[in-house]
Amino acid sequence: MERAYRIAILGATGVVGTEILQILEERKFPVDSLVLLASARSAGKQLPYRGTFLPVQSLSEKSFEGIDLVFASAGGSISKQWAPQIVQARATLIDNSSAFRMTEGVPLVVPEVNPEDLRAHQGIIANPNCSTILMTLALWPLHQVRPIKRVICSTYQAASGAGAAAMAELQDQTRDVLAGRDPNPQAFPHPIAFNLFPHNSPMTENRYCEEELKMIYETQKIFHDPYLRVSATCVRVPVLRAHAESINIEFHEPFPIEEATNLLKQAPGVMFTENWQSNTFAMPLDASGQDPVLVGRVRQDLSCPEALELWLCGDQIRKGAALNAVQIGEWLVQNDLVSHKSDLVSRV
Amino acid sequence: MERAYRIAILGATGVVGTEILQILEERKFPVDSLVLLASARSAGKQLPYRGTFLPVQSLSEKSFEGIDLVFASAGGSISKQWAPQIVQARATLIDNSSAFRMTEGVPLVVPEVNPEDLRAHQGIIANPNCSTILMTLALWPLHQVRPIKRVICSTYQAASGAGAAAMAELQDQTRDVLAGRDPNPQAFPHPIAFNLFPHNSPMTENRYCEEELKMIYETQKIFHDPYLRVSATCVRVPVLRAHAESINIEFHEPFPIEEATNLLKQAPGVMFTENWQSNTFAMPLDASGQDPVLVGRVRQDLSCPEALELWLCGDQIRKGAALNAVQIGEWLVQNDLVSHKSDLVSRV
Repeated sequence: MERAYRIAILGATGVVGTEILQILEERKFPVDSLVLLASARSAGKQLPYRGTFLPVQSLSEKSFEGIDLVFASAGGSISKQWAPQIVQARATLIDNSSAFRMTEGVPLVVPEVNPEDLRAHQGIIANPNCSTILMTLALWPLHQVRPIKRVICSTYQAASGAGAAAMAELQDQTRDVLAGRDPNPQAFPHPIAFNLFPHNSPMTENRYCEEELKMIYETQKIFHDPYLRVSATCVRVPVLRAHAESINIEFHEPFPIEEATNLLKQAPGVMFTENWQSNTFAMPLDASGQDPVLVGRVRQDLSCPEALELWLCGDQIRKGAALNAVQIGEWLVQNDLVSHKSDLVSRV
Repeated sequence: MERAYRIAILGATGVVGTEILQILEERKFPVDSLVLLASARSAGKQLPYRGTFLPVQSLSEKSFEGIDLVFASAGGSISKQWAPQIVQARATLIDNSSAFRMTEGVPLVVPEVNPEDLRAHQGIIANPNCSTILMTLALWPLHQVRPIKRVICSTYQAASGAGAAAMAELQDQTRDVLAGRDPNPQAFPHPIAFNLFPHNSPMTENRYCEEELKMIYETQKIFHDPYLRVSATCVRVPVLRAHAESINIEFHEPFPIEEATNLLKQAPGVMFTENWQSNTFAMPLDASGQDPVLVGRVRQDLSCPEALELWLCGDQIRKGAALNAVQIGEWLVQNDLVSHKSDLVSRV
């Protein structure tokens, strides 16, 4: 009989947490027991799972006793606070926050790209930033054949990346504006209805916001290439749950469109999507709820013989977060890597 | 006494036509008489001007008799059809369509950039594409000091670029979607409510849509630099009337941020807009109804020492179309260039 695992979802009531629960069910993850954890505020709620309802429990010191695998999606400070207990309890943490992504000894993994990095895990595994995951799925199959020299990406990011309150704000505020009322931003710092703005993550001293730096440094870590040249401009747009990205990729030599197209058509996690006749390409509405990232509109850059332009859309909640985390869990299960004998706890 | 001119607005009832009328009034354009022209369908409508109402007349063979200056914004086929009559009537056409933009002998002008090109006009002057106008205002002051090597632009384009029906569709369709009804695209080929898609202008054989090629070829013509390397990805977003652009600009040498910032602060037609402390930059809602293009968020590109990243927003209807056309008219008036003795008519 296949081994089953004792799972906890930390941040179970959030957008990503509820999606993880749903994906565990959809993909028949080998679950022995399932504990839903959240703040005291959400304790007592019930979430549907395999035809029944599971109670949400309040997070406590004893939450991780006897747990094998924790999917965390409750923000960086919660992850930082609880990671030592999780690892000490000999559970393995798959963390959706940015808390440990750049920490040495913590694999940062997109299963279609660098699953082998999971072999060295010491109890904590980081799930990359949503925009990064989507971009790496399109870049990796090309980078394998002709190494990338430089990437310039502009994003069109959905409200979902800022959580359920932000998605509700987009809808409510849009209703207000259509009714002639002034927008009243709460979840976002600026109006989002019929508007857009550079990503609201904290600004860094080099004038990139944190979201943009994540796309740079995380891609370098995932690709094992600290010198890969990447620039990003991240923008929040009035879309609900799927991100889009306009990506210019410069190689060291010309990359024939047909070859790039064929590689992307065969790439795991990618659904190649372009119709030049009807001028139809991936759109957030099409990508929403889908597992693969929709990639296409591959063009020869007219400004540079060595560069291609491409376009992608991907569900921020699924492949951008919950699905990627569950896929990491699946790879651990398949390779009997769920457990660990970590000394990482002393370092986090 | 200052000379006043007999003006006609062709396409007076459209989004851009009504804005031209309003801007002529706002800026006290020296109007002797004003004729509003549109299709038979719109004839009889009344539009407000200087405290009164002007009737819209149906376009006919005699519409341009005794007219000095025609502002046309009724689409490329109407412009092509009527340009010969306009020029033959010795009126000068300032055309908002793409019909003559790349025609030799037709100046393509952003008054802050290449007004001197107007001196050679032969009766037809082209107003550039909206995204192009906005981009050139930000690029030109930098290009004057350190020539640009390559530009990579991704746009976030408002519904207004597709006309009044498209703006109404964005609002109506959003109302439908919020009420749980399916989107019913008419003006756009795809749903626009809470969605976005690569620009729906016709696709060309090199896999750039026409809007993208306009940004390339028009910028080259305006800058008198046919070898300027530009690539563009144009995207339609659910915003009403202001476009945004994420622009990566590579020079032949590093361009200090402070110097670029100072140049942009002094640049005509530009309002420099960035607040790093509060993480606030130009947004479509701020740019809507404004004359200048809002430019800022100037960053050193971390992937290339010779490149800068910047961000802009501009009102697509005003500076992107109507205002630029009226400014061209003003420059003609100031330099006594409204009239012409053209032989261009034989060539268009």
